Amino acid sequence: MNLINHQFRLAARPAGLPQRANWSATEEAVREPGQNELLVKILYISLDPAMRGWMNEGKSYIAPVGIGEVMRAGAVGRVIASKNSSFGIGDHVVGALGMQEYAFSDGIGITKVDPRLAPLPTYLGTLGMPGMTAYFGLLDVGQAKSGEMVVVSGAAGAVGMVVGQIGKIKGCRVVGIAGGPEKCRYIVDELGFDAAIDYKSEDVKKALKQHCPKGVDVYFDNVGGEILDAVLTQLARGARIPICGAISQYNNTTPIIGPSNYLSLLVNRARMEGFVVFDYAPRFAEAAREMAGWMAAGKLKTREDIVEGLSTFPETFLKLFRGENFGKLLIKVADS
Amino acid sequence: MNLINHQFRLAARPAGLPQRANWSATEEAVREPGQNELLVKILYISLDPAMRGWMNEGKSYIAPVGIGEVMRAGAVGRVIASKNSSFGIGDHVVGALGMQEYAFSDGIGITKVDPRLAPLPTYLGTLGMPGMTAYFGLLDVGQAKSGEMVVVSGAAGAVGMVVGQIGKIKGCRVVGIAGGPEKCRYIVDELGFDAAIDYKSEDVKKALKQHCPKGVDVYFDNVGGEILDAVLTQLARGARIPICGAISQYNNTTPIIGPSNYLSLLVNRARMEGFVVFDYAPRFAEAAREMAGWMAAGKLKTREDIVEGLSTFPETFLKLFRGENFGKLLIKVADS
Repeated sequence: MNLINHQFRLAARPAGLPQRANWSATEEAVREPGQNELLVKILYISLDPAMRGWMNEGKSYIAPVGIGEVMRAGAVGRVIASKNSSFGIGDHVVGALGMQEYAFSDGIGITKVDPRLAPLPTYLGTLGMPGMTAYFGLLDVGQAKSGEMVVVSGAAGAVGMVVGQIGKIKGCRVVGIAGGPEKCRYIVDELGFDAAIDYKSEDVKKALKQHCPKGVDVYFDNVGGEILDAVLTQLARGARIPICGAISQYNNTTPIIGPSNYLSLLVNRARMEGFVVFDYAPRFAEAAREMAGWMAAGKLKTREDIVEGLSTFPETFLKLFRGENFGKLLIKVADS
Repeated sequence: MNLINHQFRLAARPAGLPQRANWSATEEAVREPGQNELLVKILYISLDPAMRGWMNEGKSYIAPVGIGEVMRAGAVGRVIASKNSSFGIGDHVVGALGMQEYAFSDGIGITKVDPRLAPLPTYLGTLGMPGMTAYFGLLDVGQAKSGEMVVVSGAAGAVGMVVGQIGKIKGCRVVGIAGGPEKCRYIVDELGFDAAIDYKSEDVKKALKQHCPKGVDVYFDNVGGEILDAVLTQLARGARIPICGAISQYNNTTPIIGPSNYLSLLVNRARMEGFVVFDYAPRFAEAAREMAGWMAAGKLKTREDIVEGLSTFPETFLKLFRGENFGKLLIKVADS
């Protein structure tokens, strides 16, 4: 086949923010697919905050990536060879294909997608894991109901922007917390959030008091740290806090800072609840259908932040932790 | 009537552990009850960790005690005069009668109790707020089910000892965390807990690993701080953490230490949920009937730590925060 697969493998576990030395760039010839295998040419790769956790040793909700392994990553691509009867050449598929140009699969955990129904990047964003995370985190874990006050952090990120829009679709009042005036303007003017709080220039607690005078019913937390602590001071009675992540803490070299104001849960009869989107896999198709309907109706907008070239990965990945991505962060590996 | 009422009033809000100067001892003549009022001679007064919170200024689940007001406290006593048709002389009653020898009431929030069914102190303990807190916290908030692993801190305190015993009645495996060998022996040998961890001499995390090899399904938290953080590292998938209190943090002069390991909630799809026992008031009678049945059957034991004399209050109160009480801490004010 004369194809060369460029890859990024985990070379060493990071302490703090990942450095170039944590990765090794490798290449290998692409072999023929074996019995029951398909070969995918990867077109777009998803960059997610959760990947930082997968780089750490130790027990979590998923096994860590091993040293020397291709970095785990969601990706979408096109089948270019197949000995698997369920997938044919030309099919587009999404799955955990890894940080590389070509991937083999036995078809397990791989889903066909239709590029005529939605652009391919959408299957890594709003119709992919970030969208599913937003949908089930807000509606199932957060139990958001019409008329309630929803606050979401990381509001201009892949998950946050979907959380806020679903909140609006469901009749909630929605305040987003994001960094910088451009993102704040975007989530209000383009996505229809009721208000935005710029955590880089505003006192989050004061701003929440102003925008949520009756308190916060659902706080969808993507960031942890000081923002979580600020929102905890403004809970409404019976509030729910789905814990989706804590990007502010992932690169700590000191212990994570726990929420000092957690006793607000007691005073307000509130709860903080963690979840992992993979648990909802049996309902992904149902959720994706509903979300695709909202997209077709113009109620749910998507935005991607697409960087060209697999080789940019080590640097592009850091955009997530610097709050530099605006929408779903992707690497474009190939045109088609 | 020629009766003198001795009282403790809040003189100043404490910083840290309450000092003698935070209280003023006052006395006043007891007047006749007014229209619809009853006069109670107080026999036993409950000392609860929650009282420390009521001494602070600021919004909470209940208004703070005002400076100059008689300290709020649950108590049980005997009606010695009444112009209220619902209560007669000789009735025994329980309610928030305050840190004093005599109390007036219009009957609202006051409940008659029968000293022939249970000793009066029990109505401030296992059949009172601590018992209700244990019952609803473990079964409603914690959703403890047969076969599950329950861990409770403050296990030799008024709430903790009931939590553990109800856990056993419901078919759970129960581990209690308490301070010192005497308390640890008691909860295992006398109350039937499966195991005890002495946080003063043991590594709590290691001991939990040993006693709960499959993880903790319900952690009933009375203490917060380092013990909460240790239990968070040992959660089973889908664990529930009813947040009852955080006695280790109530006298902080620095900010409360939040649970550094709270992201274990995410990994384990677990939740931490606050509650306030007063919300369950409509179901107190039902719970008390069930608990009285367990007591009569010898399945639920009570233990009180009774100190004689209202005048000891400022010092006796501190036993709670030094972990010196063993069972429900009460002050005995009068014999009958």
